[in-house]
Formats: sequence, structure tokens, C-alpha cells
Amino acid sequence: MRKAQGDKKIVVIGGGTGVFTVLTGLKKHFQNLTAVVTMADDGGSAGILREEFGILPPGDIRRALIALSNTDNKTLAQLFGYRFAKGSGLSGHSFGNLMITALERITGSFESAIAEASRILSIRGKVLPVTLKKVSLAAELEDGAIIKGEANIDTPKHDGRLRIKKVWLTPPATINPAAREAIMSADAVILGPGDLYTSLAPNLLVKGMRAALKKSRAKKIYFVNLMTKFGETSGFRASDFVRVLEKYLGKEVLDYVVVNKTKPTAMRFRPYAEEKAEFVEADLQTLKKPMLIEASLIRKYGFLRHDPDKVAEIVKTLI
Amino acid sequence: MRKAQGDKKIVVIGGGTGVFTVLTGLKKHFQNLTAVVTMADDGGSAGILREEFGILPPGDIRRALIALSNTDNKTLAQLFGYRFAKGSGLSGHSFGNLMITALERITGSFESAIAEASRILSIRGKVLPVTLKKVSLAAELEDGAIIKGEANIDTPKHDGRLRIKKVWLTPPATINPAAREAIMSADAVILGPGDLYTSLAPNLLVKGMRAALKKSRAKKIYFVNLMTKFGETSGFRASDFVRVLEKYLGKEVLDYVVVNKTKPTAMRFRPYAEEKAEFVEADLQTLKKPMLIEASLIRKYGFLRHDPDKVAEIVKTLI
Repeated sequence: MRKAQGDKKIVVIGGGTGVFTVLTGLKKHFQNLTAVVTMADDGGSAGILREEFGILPPGDIRRALIALSNTDNKTLAQLFGYRFAKGSGLSGHSFGNLMITALERITGSFESAIAEASRILSIRGKVLPVTLKKVSLAAELEDGAIIKGEANIDTPKHDGRLRIKKVWLTPPATINPAAREAIMSADAVILGPGDLYTSLAPNLLVKGMRAALKKSRAKKIYFVNLMTKFGETSGFRASDFVRVLEKYLGKEVLDYVVVNKTKPTAMRFRPYAEEKAEFVEADLQTLKKPMLIEASLIRKYGFLRHDPDKVAEIVKTLI
Repeated sequence: MRKAQGDKKIVVIGGGTGVFTVLTGLKKHFQNLTAVVTMADDGGSAGILREEFGILPPGDIRRALIALSNTDNKTLAQLFGYRFAKGSGLSGHSFGNLMITALERITGSFESAIAEASRILSIRGKVLPVTLKKVSLAAELEDGAIIKGEANIDTPKHDGRLRIKKVWLTPPATINPAAREAIMSADAVILGPGDLYTSLAPNLLVKGMRAALKKSRAKKIYFVNLMTKFGETSGFRASDFVRVLEKYLGKEVLDYVVVNKTKPTAMRFRPYAEEKAEFVEADLQTLKKPMLIEASLIRKYGFLRHDPDKVAEIVKTLI
């Protein structure tokens, strides 16, 4: 018997706001959602908690949990996302991060902490760390310099126009078995949108991830970013995103590449001038495999981000 | 028609672990419980949050919320009571205090924050700050010295054998109307056990409290402490507790004074030697008004605290 579309199993791989956007769109249509998120975050609140409590970084987990939260209590979800703006020791800490840290202490493991947070927030679906090992991200730039730490790549102290030659995890880490299982039994796997080197690659770098994605019969769909990121993807066009992703993912794994085709008005680019982010040009018109999907994907207002509903519509069409 | 006993309205006034004990015992038998707690706390986690966020001190509220929590999720209550043991800026902060602080920021008021926390923890009953004004406690010692701040009275830096002449609030504050209403419609009001000058008196010092207690037709029951407290009640016997309480409460307001009559074995006093706390002698045998109740009230094991079930039994007998 054919599965009803809403029952199809979807795995979303990434980190940061991209995962949040995709899950927010998908959860209205699909009930079997799993988010697999990077564990290489070492900046800000997560970085401090990591250093002081030795826990896995809770930031990307937190965002995915909020996206999947189905609690009637709106304040609870708001609380989980709240960030302390002052207080000598609290400033910059996200309440959700503190909650995951406290739950890790109480339950004795990061996985149980996520399970408890999931229960408290009544999440529909699962949020899984891509690995249970404490890892750091490192990058080699085109000039040979080595940059250590996700935060230093994400917010470069070096010349951010320099290209990244490669990224890797130290120490090497193996895929969380639960994440592998979710991928193997999925009907679709969504990659991106998200920072190529700091949100996507760290997931693909864990041992066993490439093999799982290659072996899984899920449709693999990649959403190319709307904007470049200084220090990571300066000057990138859509084809560059696909080329680098495939370097970490392997060739002939992706089934679909989804690219935005509509350029917004100049006014909406203004907030991006300071952070040196530019519009990603769609230059994949001659692509044969993976299959190219071009669509208008940008939200109507505000930041240049994917519209969750448009993302969901594309996914519904493809699976 | 006579109210069923379980439907009777009970107000518990105090602060600290005493309120926690009483509520824990009563909640098995009574469904209309209101805790009215002191807002003079300025030490530790609450003190820092008070200073840095300008909020009312959440500590006593937190303990009362945990006592009244009916959530099936045991971890949630545990989480709320969790205290960070390390982390440069987090050490000593109680998770529940941080949650109330974040909720105050999100909802815009301390009362709404308590209401939301009550909802999240599925509490049965109400927890009310005795006043909505930010107050400090001050004390004058028998040698004329003035001590400012609840924490400095509670953990004396001066010679703790010196008696306290009087305590007062600065600035003066008025009773929270909701607390007044609860007292006026109560069938019973429980005072203590609790630190006489730092948990009980700060409640009685708010304008309107004495009048409300005098006017209310509730039975007023005072549980005398089991142990003295260095810096507050050194050398006190049961009669001293009643004398001082009545100084702040007014004469002829109390209906019952409940005193422990059983002295535990010497072994159980050992942990108290260092903090210079001593057993409170029952010396009220000739008391006529309020009525004296003598009973064995101490827990079977561990710290010398009231047994919640024994407290509840006494209350059930008296109302």
C-alpha cells in the first residue's frame, strides 16, 4: 500500500536558521520529521556552556526543538528561545541552552536531555545530534592558513574573501546511530539552506554519513542558499554551492537541487551590505543531474530568507 | 451547607523551606491552597537577579511553586529546582529563578511570570508575592547596630548571639491585593515554620497584613520552629517565638500554637553544631490563649525538619 504523503518520513540535515525554516514549513504537512543537526557549534552561549560544562553544543538542537514544538503554551516556546540581554554572567545565554544544560546534568546524558526537552515542549518529531562525540571544526584557507573553531570560521577574524580549501572535524567522529537509522528509513532527506562550511559540511564529515546518504533510498533534496556568506562563500554562485556540497556529500547522491530564481528589489539587500553578503546567482540552467528545480523561494518581507511554505510546497511536489 | 474538608481554603504564609514543607503535606488533603511568600530575599541567586534585572526575588516563589507542582513530568519539577554548580556566570543560579526572570522579561510583569510558571508546572493552587513592591529588610540589634539586607541578617557577619531588637522594610510596602483577598476568604492561615525575622516578619510588615489577619475569620495556626537560628533566634524557647511573632502580628490574632514535644536523639543534632542551632524547648505548658497543641512533629530521618504529613494531620484536626 502506498503511504499517504503526510506519513512520509523526512529527515532535515543542517544547523542554524535554515533547519528552523524548513521544519517550520514541513511540520504543517508532514508528521514524521527528524532533524539531524551539527554539533560543531562553539561560539556564544553554546561555546561557553561547552567549555564550562563539557556538554555538546545545544544551540542548533534548541532551534530545531522550537521549530517542532507543538505546545499550546506559546509562552513556553518563547521562553525556550529567550536570550538574556543583561546580567553579568547571564548576558548572551539563551534560556533553551541553559535548560538543555541543566537537563543534561539531571538526566546524565545529552540524549536524555533532548528527550526531556522534547517532552516539555511537546515536540512532534525528533531532534538528533549528528554525532554524540565532542568535535571541533577546522578549516584550511586558500593561503594555507588553518582556522580552528566553528565560530572563527563563521565570523572570520581573517580576510573573509579568502576561499576555504577544506574543512574537517577534530577529532574525527562517527554518526549517531539514531541519525543513521532515520536517514536509512527516510523517504526524503533535505539538505540546506544553511551555511555551507559551518552548518552543512560538519554533518557530512561524520563517519558513516556519506555512506548512509548514498545507501538510503530517500530522495535527497538540496536547497541552495539565497545569499553568500562572507568568510565562507563570498562570490559563490549556485553552481559553487553544489560543487562544494558534492565534495563533502559525494557525487550522484543528490536527486534535486532547488534554486531561487527571483531577484528581490535593491531595498531588501541593504541590511546585507555591512556583512558583505551577496545575492546568489542562479547559474545552473544547463545542469542535468541532479535535477534542477527553479522557483521563487524568498519571503515576501524582511530578511532574505526562504519562505517556509514555499519550501514545503516544493518538497510536497518532489516526494 | 458545610464545606467538605478538602475544599477548605488554606493560606500558607512564610518563606524558605518551611512553606515548602507545609504545602507538600497539605496538598495531599486540600485543593484550595495559596502560598503568600516574602519578597525581602536579597542573597545568592535571587540577590543577583534582583540587582541585575530589577525583578522581585524569585527564590521563595520558586520553592512554593515546586511544592504545589502537579506535573506528571517529574523531571520538570526537578529542573525547576536545579541549581548550576559551575559555570563562571551561572554558578549558584537556580534554574527556576532564571525561568521566572526570563518569563518576567517576556510577559512584562512579575505576576504574569508566576502565572506562566504555574501553568508550565501545572500547579494546583496559587503562589502570591506578599507585596509587589521591591523592598529590603533591615534590622536593629540590641547593641544599636543597624543591619541592612535580608542576607546579612540571615547569615550574620556580626556576632550572631546578639538579639534583634526589631526589623522593618525599606521602603514601606503595601500588601498585594490578591494576597489580602486570599487571607480574607480563607478558612485557615498557617504561619511558619520558618525563620522568624527573615521569613515570617517580612510578610507581617507589609501594610494591610495585620489588619487582614485580624479581620479574617480564618483559624490562624502558628507552627513554632524546631531549631533556633544563629543570628536570629539564638537561645529562643517556644515562648520567645510566640512573643516575637505576636509583636509583628498583633495580640489575640493567633488561634493555635503548635509546638513539637519530642526531643530527637543526640546524633541528629550533630549537623547543627557548626551552624550553632539548638533545639527549641517547649515551655508553653501554661499557655491559655492561643491554644497550645503539642505533638511529635519531627521527620523520622535526616535533618530536623517538620514532617509534612504530621503538619497536615494537625491542620486537618484543627479546621
